[in-house]
Amino acid sequence: MAQIVGWGHTPFGRHPDKSLEDLIRDAGGEALRHAGIAAGDVGAVWIGHFNAGMVGDAFPSSLALSIDDALRFVPAARAENACASGSAAIYSALDAIRSGRIDIALVVGVEKMSHLPTAEVAEALGGASYQPEEAGVSFPQVFSQFARAYFDAFGDKSRALAEIAVKNHRNAMANPLAQMQRPLTLEFCSTVSNKNPMIADPLKVTDCSLVSDGAAAIVIASDEAAKAFARAVRFRSTAHVSDFLPMSRRDLTAFEGPRRAISLAREQAGLQNGDLHVAEVHDCFTIAEVIATEDLGFFAPGTGFGMAEDGVTARDGAKPINTSGGLKSKGHPVGASGVAQGVEVWKQLRGQAGARQVSGDVSLALTHNVGGTGNTAVVHIFERRN
Amino acid sequence: MAQIVGWGHTPFGRHPDKSLEDLIRDAGGEALRHAGIAAGDVGAVWIGHFNAGMVGDAFPSSLALSIDDALRFVPAARAENACASGSAAIYSALDAIRSGRIDIALVVGVEKMSHLPTAEVAEALGGASYQPEEAGVSFPQVFSQFARAYFDAFGDKSRALAEIAVKNHRNAMANPLAQMQRPLTLEFCSTVSNKNPMIADPLKVTDCSLVSDGAAAIVIASDEAAKAFARAVRFRSTAHVSDFLPMSRRDLTAFEGPRRAISLAREQAGLQNGDLHVAEVHDCFTIAEVIATEDLGFFAPGTGFGMAEDGVTARDGAKPINTSGGLKSKGHPVGASGVAQGVEVWKQLRGQAGARQVSGDVSLALTHNVGGTGNTAVVHIFERRN
Repeated sequence: MAQIVGWGHTPFGRHPDKSLEDLIRDAGGEALRHAGIAAGDVGAVWIGHFNAGMVGDAFPSSLALSIDDALRFVPAARAENACASGSAAIYSALDAIRSGRIDIALVVGVEKMSHLPTAEVAEALGGASYQPEEAGVSFPQVFSQFARAYFDAFGDKSRALAEIAVKNHRNAMANPLAQMQRPLTLEFCSTVSNKNPMIADPLKVTDCSLVSDGAAAIVIASDEAAKAFARAVRFRSTAHVSDFLPMSRRDLTAFEGPRRAISLAREQAGLQNGDLHVAEVHDCFTIAEVIATEDLGFFAPGTGFGMAEDGVTARDGAKPINTSGGLKSKGHPVGASGVAQGVEVWKQLRGQAGARQVSGDVSLALTHNVGGTGNTAVVHIFERRN
Repeated sequence: MAQIVGWGHTPFGRHPDKSLEDLIRDAGGEALRHAGIAAGDVGAVWIGHFNAGMVGDAFPSSLALSIDDALRFVPAARAENACASGSAAIYSALDAIRSGRIDIALVVGVEKMSHLPTAEVAEALGGASYQPEEAGVSFPQVFSQFARAYFDAFGDKSRALAEIAVKNHRNAMANPLAQMQRPLTLEFCSTVSNKNPMIADPLKVTDCSLVSDGAAAIVIASDEAAKAFARAVRFRSTAHVSDFLPMSRRDLTAFEGPRRAISLAREQAGLQNGDLHVAEVHDCFTIAEVIATEDLGFFAPGTGFGMAEDGVTARDGAKPINTSGGLKSKGHPVGASGVAQGVEVWKQLRGQAGARQVSGDVSLALTHNVGGTGNTAVVHIFERRN
């Protein structure tokens, strides 16, 4: 279908001195250099970006041309799909490549969030998650409903959620680009304290992903064009599914849209879930990682919660999940997250993930990027090109 | 390539009682009914929308599913490209159709602007038009620079600009969906007065497009799928070009990006400019219509200004421009404008433009949708399917 032939990735974290344009230029320029191509070889550019209004840059695709003078007159557009904006940009690029219109695309996901009050960020994310008339006050409160529904069905799993936080922090410590490179203890994560207050029962601070600035970029080439690149990772299948916005119209114990996207991607790839070696899933909250791994069919419904505790989803476990640290610890600059997932699986599949490299055969990987509360979901399955 | 097989179009104007979701539902639902298809036949939905931040709806693509319950699980995404957001959405849909991923797309362009202070709208549009450090205070001031550069080269053409306003108001009076359905006299448009103050010399209020709410939608089918539809208009060619944001890096007397897009579309279509019968061009300001018609090759540089005065661009002239009334008089709900252009040429090509129908052979039409100050440009050439 098409292949990732290069990538760029700024550190995720707080970048008060970097503009949106700086972040785009840093990640986009790095991706071109990593791919070893000239900007003039790029057929089109997509920017994945959630909330231009947040930062006052009304027209982020226009900033893309600042990456290189040779991008003048190359078409650039922005794709937005809430927290799956990066994946929406990848999807548009894949369509353009598959249509034969272009051979090579540059996709940059980017967001600046840390300059805003956290409450404002939470409100913006919340606005992408439910209808105003049924709104909780914050994005965490929406996900707390999912957690409570899960607990109602399967018992209080707060300790298991804490294990996920600990595991993802451990992974982030091995990722030089991650925002939170420090360990958290199970005791700290599972205890309500001044430093770890309850945000929306049962979700504590350590159950929530981060407010982050950052950008990630990938160069995508058609299968034909990719023959010229030595280091590539191939999209084996890809699926996008949207679902209703109102929470009242959906089942709180499952993300039906994401689940369908997973099924479609798996069928298209001709794979069973057991065939996959690593996955980056959308852990905007720890409970979301549990639901995602169950939706993925990695674990039966009601059994995903204990996998971090048992080490199954750890780097050296049978099903490594979020080796990058995930949104939880690597960071979640909204528009960048879907693209950064692609960068991580590229590294794992090419054996270049450094201290966090999964050992053994890593030839099939999956990314799972969700917007809102499952309102939009993009799933890609990747394979190492031999 | 692909064909427009149905459309919807809300009245443009002030709609304080309509939410963004209402407008999407109105136009999108009308387009499905006009095409005579069930929502379940739609393969994917794109929303063209500029400034979600303006209205507080952070995630407009999620609203698309409210058009019809059968859209549940259909992928929906938003495309943004400033004032060419509607065309960016069309472009994404065409890529997906040409790739074979889907057969039928629904594209809805939408914007709500009238609830905001005009100064705030102008600032948002300005932010999409230049780098902050070189900014004029407002969007009109940016275009006044283009007007002054034109006047410097070819003499003061204020009266010719007034003729364009008069012509486009005349067209809008024949368009029941237009925002400004009242005549303006040449005297009023060419005179600075309390009711027609100078906004940014030489541009007066009557030289500026409108602050509008509204939505437009089209159903696009692949050539193969379109065989089932009796009333279709075919995309003969399509081009998208982006250009640098900083004004300092561009020629003020020409929109080089849009000009390139026109050339690409024309070459791809195998047509001369003289072959085209009608065109909807991006007249965000009257001066922009002059430059567009010259860029289109309809008139030599420095000669486009007088064409409204001479009646050449009138409905019954040799080169009818903006028969809908254009952004100037039909209205400019930013994300909707590019899609609405497609609706207008569908009507002209199918002989269904009512009182404003251009007589004689109307078989080839062009749309020209520009974002910022020529930073992004999408040009489509359409032909009537026989």
